[in-house]
Amino acid sequence: MTRVTLAVDAMGGDFGPHVTVPAVLQALGIYPFLEIFLVGLPDTLQPLLVTADSSVLERLHCVAAESVITSDVKPSSAIRQSKNSSMRLALELVKEQKAQACLSAGDTGTLMGLALFLLKPLPQIRRPALMTLLPNALDGQTVILDIGANVEADSEMLLQFAMMGAVVAQQMLAISEPRIALLNVGQEEGKGKESIRQAAKLLRQQSVIRYTGFLEGSELLTGQADVLVCDGFSGNVALKTLEGAVRYFLQRAGRGQSSWRRLIRTLLSPNTSKIDPDKYNGAFLLGLSGVVIKSHGAANQQAFLAAIEQSILTVQRQLSQRVARQLATVVARSDRT
Amino acid sequence: MTRVTLAVDAMGGDFGPHVTVPAVLQALGIYPFLEIFLVGLPDTLQPLLVTADSSVLERLHCVAAESVITSDVKPSSAIRQSKNSSMRLALELVKEQKAQACLSAGDTGTLMGLALFLLKPLPQIRRPALMTLLPNALDGQTVILDIGANVEADSEMLLQFAMMGAVVAQQMLAISEPRIALLNVGQEEGKGKESIRQAAKLLRQQSVIRYTGFLEGSELLTGQADVLVCDGFSGNVALKTLEGAVRYFLQRAGRGQSSWRRLIRTLLSPNTSKIDPDKYNGAFLLGLSGVVIKSHGAANQQAFLAAIEQSILTVQRQLSQRVARQLATVVARSDRT
Repeated sequence: MTRVTLAVDAMGGDFGPHVTVPAVLQALGIYPFLEIFLVGLPDTLQPLLVTADSSVLERLHCVAAESVITSDVKPSSAIRQSKNSSMRLALELVKEQKAQACLSAGDTGTLMGLALFLLKPLPQIRRPALMTLLPNALDGQTVILDIGANVEADSEMLLQFAMMGAVVAQQMLAISEPRIALLNVGQEEGKGKESIRQAAKLLRQQSVIRYTGFLEGSELLTGQADVLVCDGFSGNVALKTLEGAVRYFLQRAGRGQSSWRRLIRTLLSPNTSKIDPDKYNGAFLLGLSGVVIKSHGAANQQAFLAAIEQSILTVQRQLSQRVARQLATVVARSDRT
Repeated sequence: MTRVTLAVDAMGGDFGPHVTVPAVLQALGIYPFLEIFLVGLPDTLQPLLVTADSSVLERLHCVAAESVITSDVKPSSAIRQSKNSSMRLALELVKEQKAQACLSAGDTGTLMGLALFLLKPLPQIRRPALMTLLPNALDGQTVILDIGANVEADSEMLLQFAMMGAVVAQQMLAISEPRIALLNVGQEEGKGKESIRQAAKLLRQQSVIRYTGFLEGSELLTGQADVLVCDGFSGNVALKTLEGAVRYFLQRAGRGQSSWRRLIRTLLSPNTSKIDPDKYNGAFLLGLSGVVIKSHGAANQQAFLAAIEQSILTVQRQLSQRVARQLATVVARSDRT
């Protein structure tokens, strides 16, 4: 199998190298075609690597960072102070084409800012969006974006998110004419914010987009849309609320008698695992000229491994290149309409 | 038991009188102290009442409306055209103190606009907020507001929501110093929208408020806050996402073998029922000089009955009066700080 090379920011997330390093070692053990640049503070990384197998270590390249960007710094000042930080070095490995994707569990705003600064958005895109896939009741998946890259989005950004989401649905879900919806607080035309009503108008004008209307939070998992478009604030609230609900149910189920408990977890688990933040992880920063994957900050080893696997899949499917290529033709066609 | 008199907009919601009338008759049958003004189009209501028991009908007063406000009309024009509509007549019964509360499953924006116009906000409040209670993992409840009355909220509105929410937590949950949090996309100070960061500053300045910081969607059910404050757009997305997740789980659980299925539903049901939109319903429009309860539009008979019961409880607990009274002293005290 063709080699896949990832740059991993070892320092990001709530638990830093204590989660990222074991997950990286585990991934290298599972996937013999995988090669990883592990970017972090050498003194912190070294002790965590001493017991690792040599067959794994020969595909692991430590890159020494001098600092770590903490999530309490404003993205703007984080970028100024980012030189030789683990996150920036990991992104630079993608920029220099030494790695095919960068994975970080660091602060979303900073990752977005640095990625925009270093990798540049695609020609047709003003701001990248964070995208993930949700399972749905029709046993399919729904593309949702933006889930946190931009706390606010005007109508033009929402239109661009819709276009990117459509390409993802075509490429990753093999849906030739994906149904695009906007997340709103009601289904009627006059509902919600001005930016969303305006985006609906813009979407209706696009002949290349199959726009189906507004959807509410309650429809997130029904499969009524293939692509659900929202600003990063609402999308983040929706996704995290969903994750919280899964945790709540599993915890509640866990309070029953142990035999029941096991039964319930078994029954629910194939269905909920795709929205269980401990098992499913890795959102794609869409709209850049390079692949950037964001792990959620609270990821444990299993979740960070899932994000590594997500990164591998993204590279293997050449998602970034396909989005760029398709978007160029889609936008060109929509300009003509 | 003291009489409770409600004004019910029979025409609101997706199913109108076909859901509201049976639920009203059921409620009158269960609660002998209940009296209801049923407001709607006489021709539609009459056929639904013919088989009703006389002991029930003597506590049911039909009020003839001439029109129904549909949810595809903009709230502003809905208000202009509202004369003698079922929603407006129901609200007027509260204004004229003939009923102690108004219940409607009609359009949220219109209900909010009409209620503001007819019942006026409390002196300290600029805009009312829609509030509900969520169950939490600590077996308690969390007050959440705004869940849809205002699609946008500035920092001052968020502060007022926090103050109203604090009173509800004190009065309904008997928590003397409720922990107040703001819904955001991260916990760090610099996160999220300007309005939320600004609201955090205002909240920190209030000596009468125990402000504990930002919470994310994933913490909605953890019980980390007693009051969760948000703008109506995010709150609506969060609540509806939660409702959608409950539906998804119950549906998924329902696909198993029938014996397992029953077991799972039994186990999950006492815990999930409080967020199951088919069983738990009725949000409170907080900050008005009168009691207005909103049922969700898709309510079935069981859910509309739950909203009637919610209205009864609100009247019996004198929540509106308590909020008004307490708010006056809270705001007076906070002015002095």
